[in-house]
Amino acid sequence: MTSILSVGSVAYDSVKTPFGEVEEVLGGSATYFSVSASFFSQVDLVACVGNDFRKQDVQLLESRNIDLEGLEYMEGQTFRWKGEYSNDLNEAQTLDTQLNVFSDFRPTLPVRYQDSSYVFLGNIDPSLQRQVLSQVQTPQLVICDTMNYWIEGHFEALLETLKSVDILLVNDAEARQLAQEPNLVRGARKILAWGPRIVVIKRGEYGVLMFYMDSEGTQAEDQLPSGDSLSVFGAPAYPLEDVSDPTGAGDSFAGGFVGYLAGVNRCDVQSLRQAIIFGSVMASFCVEKFSLDRLKELTFTEIELRYKEFKAMTQFEDIP
Amino acid sequence: MTSILSVGSVAYDSVKTPFGEVEEVLGGSATYFSVSASFFSQVDLVACVGNDFRKQDVQLLESRNIDLEGLEYMEGQTFRWKGEYSNDLNEAQTLDTQLNVFSDFRPTLPVRYQDSSYVFLGNIDPSLQRQVLSQVQTPQLVICDTMNYWIEGHFEALLETLKSVDILLVNDAEARQLAQEPNLVRGARKILAWGPRIVVIKRGEYGVLMFYMDSEGTQAEDQLPSGDSLSVFGAPAYPLEDVSDPTGAGDSFAGGFVGYLAGVNRCDVQSLRQAIIFGSVMASFCVEKFSLDRLKELTFTEIELRYKEFKAMTQFEDIP
Repeated sequence: MTSILSVGSVAYDSVKTPFGEVEEVLGGSATYFSVSASFFSQVDLVACVGNDFRKQDVQLLESRNIDLEGLEYMEGQTFRWKGEYSNDLNEAQTLDTQLNVFSDFRPTLPVRYQDSSYVFLGNIDPSLQRQVLSQVQTPQLVICDTMNYWIEGHFEALLETLKSVDILLVNDAEARQLAQEPNLVRGARKILAWGPRIVVIKRGEYGVLMFYMDSEGTQAEDQLPSGDSLSVFGAPAYPLEDVSDPTGAGDSFAGGFVGYLAGVNRCDVQSLRQAIIFGSVMASFCVEKFSLDRLKELTFTEIELRYKEFKAMTQFEDIP
Repeated sequence: MTSILSVGSVAYDSVKTPFGEVEEVLGGSATYFSVSASFFSQVDLVACVGNDFRKQDVQLLESRNIDLEGLEYMEGQTFRWKGEYSNDLNEAQTLDTQLNVFSDFRPTLPVRYQDSSYVFLGNIDPSLQRQVLSQVQTPQLVICDTMNYWIEGHFEALLETLKSVDILLVNDAEARQLAQEPNLVRGARKILAWGPRIVVIKRGEYGVLMFYMDSEGTQAEDQLPSGDSLSVFGAPAYPLEDVSDPTGAGDSFAGGFVGYLAGVNRCDVQSLRQAIIFGSVMASFCVEKFSLDRLKELTFTEIELRYKEFKAMTQFEDIP
């Protein structure tokens, strides 16, 4: 079975939303990613925690069959994040970040991880992302997440990382900022020239756009009329009646997206499109409850049902 | 052939965007709606203009076979609107509004219009909308547009109008404001209890959501899991590389949407979904140039081609 090497943060989050408040609950980009991806594929987790990391949280990861050989225990406290959402659930306000053990994290991969085919570089320092990737012998597909902090302060390092990346995941503000271009189509084209062959733009409650160069046909109908075979796939987000906590939505999306690709071990256009939907499905579940509370009780039958709802929700007939 | 009665404003607009500036060009909600709808159906225009209304603008409407018997010439100036868009093309800043002849507009329908089956009540005073509708004997489908100004200042009058409306078109901010509910799903359900059986929520560059009660099946997969047969259809907007002027996008959407329904003379779920796509197609063309410059040169072949691009752009396979 194909497995995914996932590097990123494992954290304790304190989160306040209009619908409730939690303190020091399990969070972190690699946690959400791994638990989400574990529904589709084997996941090998590369991250660090402090000696305050709780046994019940280890058990949760183990219960999802996530391999923890790459989870390093370090002297000190686990990474802390504190944030708040107003009625506009699209954006968190960070109140406090304590990197703790994460500031000294220099991951060395367990030998078994070095022949990973699927590598997910979570939202961490681009140099660290490269350091991890350099330890993987022949990665088949490299997926990278990033955020405004790295785009602003580590632009050159990020560009260097992007050279080795197949798929970049960003939100729309990050895409505009990275490409220094307000128009997303032009921005995507610019980013595609820097290395990635696919750019996935997450737009929160507005869904997802995926841009790619379609090498499968020169006249494919999903190509934009620009003449350079830039193609696009768009999907709305699942319209939820009850959103409790948006934390981890993007990482859960990434988990469903990469998890599905690794699970079927394919990366053709149709699989990529299905992966976008599975990613959207996982994000929609994630936000229904705080922390990983919804993901940890989720069943694959529920995932399949919501996929079918996405299909029904977006379906329309061709013109006669 | 089924025709649409369309009431709304005909205006001269002065518009500034990051991509250019135009002065006193043809605009107005009924103008954009009618020209857009005219690609699909016969349109009867009910509006008023001043004696400054230009012959070339009459000719443009005539060239689209729009019936102008209901276009009233009044003493004074045509309605003026002046607005500006910043880099965020989703929202216009109104710099000046001069109602002029429009402030005394009390439409009396030509006899031939009184047996219209499709009635589009453009974005005008809700009392005026009702006054027009009351002159139509047996309308088959009533579609209504509105905006924050009427929601804020004429809420009761608007609620009264909604009782007779089948389909309400609003943007997401307006839906939230009208329903006094930040969550769109809950908001849509609230609005559906007031009269309309379908709510179409326009989200600019983020596409469209349509909420409706699905009477066609009690277990349809497009139903949300709320148990009350609330169903949803979602479509992304066409990702454009060059947007010149967003003015009229919403009205062009409405024109394609209502025009298609009237053209096929159907209102089942599949036709509604196709209509949403045709609406999105027309909006995407509208914004490519200033004023009606793109719509007036448009061909039906281009419309069909872009519909197929929408189909290709949103297509994904079901799970095995």
